[in-house]
Amino acid sequence: MDISIVKVGGKVVEEEKSLASLLDDFAALSGAKILVHGGGRSATKIGEQLGYNAQMIEGRRVTDAETLQVVTMVYAGLVNKNIVAQLQSRGINALGLSGADIDVVRSQQRPPMTMSDGSVVDFGFVGNVRSVQTDVLALLLSRGIVPVMSPITHDGNGQLLNTNADTIASELARALSSQMKVRLVYCFEKPGVLLNADDDNTLIERLDYDTFKRHQASGVIVAGMIPKLDNGFAALRQGVNSVVITNVEGLRTGRGTTLVL
Amino acid sequence: MDISIVKVGGKVVEEEKSLASLLDDFAALSGAKILVHGGGRSATKIGEQLGYNAQMIEGRRVTDAETLQVVTMVYAGLVNKNIVAQLQSRGINALGLSGADIDVVRSQQRPPMTMSDGSVVDFGFVGNVRSVQTDVLALLLSRGIVPVMSPITHDGNGQLLNTNADTIASELARALSSQMKVRLVYCFEKPGVLLNADDDNTLIERLDYDTFKRHQASGVIVAGMIPKLDNGFAALRQGVNSVVITNVEGLRTGRGTTLVL
Repeated sequence: MDISIVKVGGKVVEEEKSLASLLDDFAALSGAKILVHGGGRSATKIGEQLGYNAQMIEGRRVTDAETLQVVTMVYAGLVNKNIVAQLQSRGINALGLSGADIDVVRSQQRPPMTMSDGSVVDFGFVGNVRSVQTDVLALLLSRGIVPVMSPITHDGNGQLLNTNADTIASELARALSSQMKVRLVYCFEKPGVLLNADDDNTLIERLDYDTFKRHQASGVIVAGMIPKLDNGFAALRQGVNSVVITNVEGLRTGRGTTLVL
Repeated sequence: MDISIVKVGGKVVEEEKSLASLLDDFAALSGAKILVHGGGRSATKIGEQLGYNAQMIEGRRVTDAETLQVVTMVYAGLVNKNIVAQLQSRGINALGLSGADIDVVRSQQRPPMTMSDGSVVDFGFVGNVRSVQTDVLALLLSRGIVPVMSPITHDGNGQLLNTNADTIASELARALSSQMKVRLVYCFEKPGVLLNADDDNTLIERLDYDTFKRHQASGVIVAGMIPKLDNGFAALRQGVNSVVITNVEGLRTGRGTTLVL
């Protein structure tokens, strides 16, 4: 079986128009598929409405008990069920999942981290992925069901944990690659990895690991792109057939940055 | 296959202690099982925190666009995923669902209703159940998976709808009764149907339809109990093997009100 695992970022799924466009293109993909979504901006907005302030440290959200409630509501409820209903209306038999559902992604609460400035930060209820169970997932995929995965996992002891959606996508891809030919697609705002972030014409069509590390060292590739690429190359090394970084249009046109080892 | 479909009301699932007790008893039930939950009080609380006021007319929530967002977040996200994670920690392979997931419960937006005082009320994004798909559900049940159903459904055209959890439970029971021996259990605060709502010793252990209608006419059975009983008797008539109204303790002890035709 061939499968596409498509990870879509916050902004794409949170605006009605870009979401509709994404879901049209996703629905049109042939073969088995899984959608993995974020939803950070909605969570920040609803958290603020509830009187909680999102605390971000080096781009990572600190997840206290109240924030965990908000992200559980927004990611696994609001964003996930809207996507599922929209896909159903396009004839796709979608099934929304968190990591707790059918125990598909189990994680462990992240221990306090030492940051780049030497300070130690406890990010709270954030999970590091520990295991992915693919048996029921594979059965569902074989029946034409399309899982839609929200970035909430659990630790097996009843604790939900906020978990990086890029990591969930790459861990799912790795776990399924033993049984299937897996294409992992990271969909975000830009058409792929750019040499100049402000110029879409500087797209790197094929990126190998050494070039990535060189561009990272020289500051050409920065910020949110780095964990995405680290995840992507790790997935490639561990058996995933293809990893592509692109935007919604790239899902249709095939244009984007393909990672090569 | 024998299956228990247990519907639990808002209060039971919203307090940590009563929820833990419920899930212990639910986890201990033998055979296949489905949990259907509400979560109205949390939705009201979070809605108020967001600055929305729940508008209730004759005990029914008016679901405008903002309220639909809140109930989708709370029912399908917060309450559902917490229950799923808690069941997983008890060794139960739970799968949280809304009606949109695997298209399990499809509904139609309720047209404006004429109320008892003659006024016409549009309840907004509220769904009347139209169809239940049991093929994938039966497959999952045969694999030992325990569905946990939140009272959010969809209309097949991308619209989520707030739907009565009692009705979802009875419609699931009806639909599954063609393939399985179904026991439908409504779990709420009281030990069953009482002749005197303030005295638990006045439990009616067996209630037939004529006696129910007589007690309704004389005002002995009132309010929220009436749709529950109407649903329960309808389910019995349509092939469900057993319908019981009880509280969390009754799930363990077997005590409660059994409906008979």
